[in-house]
Amino acid sequence: MKGNVMVGQSGGPTAVINASLAGVFDAAVNLHGASSKVYGMLHGVQGLLKGNYVDLGEFIGSEADLELLKRTPAAFLGSCRYKLRRAADDDGPYRQLFKMLDELGIDYFFYIGGNDSMDTIDQLSAYAAKINSPIRFIGVPKTIDNDLVLTDHTPGFGSAAKYIATATKELIRDGKVNDMDGVTVVEIMGRDAGWLTGSAALCRGDDCPGPDLIYLPEVPFDIDSFLQCIYEKQKQNRMVVAAVSEGIRFLDGKYVCEASSSLRNVDAFGHKQLTGSARVLADIIAGDVGCKVRAIEFSSLQRCAAHLTSLTDVNEAFMVGQAAVKAASEGYSGKFIMLKRVSDDPYVCQTDICDVSLVANLKKEVPREWINDDGNNVTSEFINYVTPLIQGEFEPIMENGLPKHIPYVVKPL
Amino acid sequence: MKGNVMVGQSGGPTAVINASLAGVFDAAVNLHGASSKVYGMLHGVQGLLKGNYVDLGEFIGSEADLELLKRTPAAFLGSCRYKLRRAADDDGPYRQLFKMLDELGIDYFFYIGGNDSMDTIDQLSAYAAKINSPIRFIGVPKTIDNDLVLTDHTPGFGSAAKYIATATKELIRDGKVNDMDGVTVVEIMGRDAGWLTGSAALCRGDDCPGPDLIYLPEVPFDIDSFLQCIYEKQKQNRMVVAAVSEGIRFLDGKYVCEASSSLRNVDAFGHKQLTGSARVLADIIAGDVGCKVRAIEFSSLQRCAAHLTSLTDVNEAFMVGQAAVKAASEGYSGKFIMLKRVSDDPYVCQTDICDVSLVANLKKEVPREWINDDGNNVTSEFINYVTPLIQGEFEPIMENGLPKHIPYVVKPL
Repeated sequence: MKGNVMVGQSGGPTAVINASLAGVFDAAVNLHGASSKVYGMLHGVQGLLKGNYVDLGEFIGSEADLELLKRTPAAFLGSCRYKLRRAADDDGPYRQLFKMLDELGIDYFFYIGGNDSMDTIDQLSAYAAKINSPIRFIGVPKTIDNDLVLTDHTPGFGSAAKYIATATKELIRDGKVNDMDGVTVVEIMGRDAGWLTGSAALCRGDDCPGPDLIYLPEVPFDIDSFLQCIYEKQKQNRMVVAAVSEGIRFLDGKYVCEASSSLRNVDAFGHKQLTGSARVLADIIAGDVGCKVRAIEFSSLQRCAAHLTSLTDVNEAFMVGQAAVKAASEGYSGKFIMLKRVSDDPYVCQTDICDVSLVANLKKEVPREWINDDGNNVTSEFINYVTPLIQGEFEPIMENGLPKHIPYVVKPL
Repeated sequence: MKGNVMVGQSGGPTAVINASLAGVFDAAVNLHGASSKVYGMLHGVQGLLKGNYVDLGEFIGSEADLELLKRTPAAFLGSCRYKLRRAADDDGPYRQLFKMLDELGIDYFFYIGGNDSMDTIDQLSAYAAKINSPIRFIGVPKTIDNDLVLTDHTPGFGSAAKYIATATKELIRDGKVNDMDGVTVVEIMGRDAGWLTGSAALCRGDDCPGPDLIYLPEVPFDIDSFLQCIYEKQKQNRMVVAAVSEGIRFLDGKYVCEASSSLRNVDAFGHKQLTGSARVLADIIAGDVGCKVRAIEFSSLQRCAAHLTSLTDVNEAFMVGQAAVKAASEGYSGKFIMLKRVSDDPYVCQTDICDVSLVANLKKEVPREWINDDGNNVTSEFINYVTPLIQGEFEPIMENGLPKHIPYVVKPL
């Protein structure tokens, strides 16, 4: 056993996905020392199949490099949205991958990603068992959407929630400066789960009224009721702020954003690319209510704002990376690293492991009882669940006025 | 002489406009002590004409309050976009205002705003001279757009530039994670001046390639040349990032955003509300180049991101507020506080004063020689000019995971 490691990142980036990579690297180096190698696949399994990988030790040579890596947003190794076909249908990629892993003396394989990526771990570990390969496969959770099952929450979510609550708080101040009727519609990520959209409510407090209305994708979106709420709120409060998920759907099941004329794409997993719910609603409000309307999309900033991360989230992202190495070294394979909330006050969270097949391809929505009866706000249970996850700051390393990142693994032109 | 002060905020908010308010308050209190009052007009001159003002001393009772005020985005006193008609046409509002100011024992009147607001100071001071009123009127510069003449730069610009460069740097990382062709079009504020859009270039360095293309409103936008540039850049660099001003115009003078189907408003000064250049261009690129395209608007976040301000900017915003009080106490009226760059290395900046009539209603564009010949990038002179303005951090005061602000002056419902 050489103790060599192959690690990759997959799916949408987060502000802390590199903290998990740092956790894997750190634990692997501590476990086997300099005699073993930690390889990083470039652009996930898709890149590895093309023979693209690097020796991570050449890029992370010091504690300072590790600290920069933890503060660099988006996947350092590059990402992909690639779904492995079932080996029963086509075992070519599997044979190719295992040949490569054997040649590199890989014992442990880690994949940092969401529910689609966990399917990859599930398939590869099953194939390993079938061919009696000793390579161990462990999935490391990552997604801002917080929609993985079993785990209390996912690394990446806390930082995105902190960014969303902060930006919403600032936008509400900005929106309320003028003594005039208006509506601000803020569009927030989360295709099928409203964890991020609901997190806008975290800014409610003594110094901020919070969003007036919050619409999660878990509840069908009634446009008539929405317009009625805008009217009602505007009687008390001239500038109304509504936070809406990118994935809200009209009562007939059609996505609100599909009423937009703009371009729409479908990604490799067949997910629709959703943008434009806020713009569609703003245009409807402008026509119906007739006041000044702003449509604001937080867009990719909510997943890559490394300048404003949650220390709790960064630490947990690092911790799941370390836990994956520990689990593999203990002989586990086909497993998923979970976060388990041991206590709320004080907040204590530990790692645990479960079969990756229990997580792959499944989605966790916001429970209906954490959304108010009217379907336009979240309850205190929701707030209490998210609040610990945004605590603490992980200060950027500033250079010449801007946050410093680790240099690109492949120098972009 | 009672030494009472009336201060107001006008036009678009910035992340540091309240630091200028803090500077006025602090200097006024130091000058005349607790015996004099500092009144704040609510929603600028428009609100004052309705009799809406507060005693600022009731809201800022401690050094801690002043520190919170400096960290709170958007105009604490509320803002307006209200243009005083010439007194020769209608002196009703003037008689009303001066009656109110006399009743309150006001000696000094400060207005924190941009070129439209400076016109208000110009008109009011001229009227005061005409009626032999001893009230002194001083304009305090504020605008993220950096488009005021004579002053080296405007408070608010440095923080917006820092936010834009940081967010662009993070978005570029995010955009380059996938091994696929794509284009990201980022839309940045600045209707007629490209200072903010050009500032996206500040993120270029060892750890970031910076935007591939930058289009300022000072140069007519040639769509054919733009598409050609996208093709060329994509040969070297699969994900191309273009930063465009909201105010770019096609060769025929028509705004790019006017090709959008979305709602358009006109504000009280007759300015068009521009949004959507990025969306229009993204749709054109998707149709022409056919790759994945993202349109990202920084929207109001670039002017209200108080969680990421430039310490240099905050200090200068405070300084111009103090300088306004000093100028008024020395007998000046109808003046404007300028920032004067004394030295570049080390960067040293002082305040100076000039006639407000020299600033009102005028606009400062980016010099053509600070834009490259192709009109798709800024030069090193531009970078050298902006770089000192984004230096230093002004840490937010965090509470329960979020930046804390001063409570609203009028509690929103």
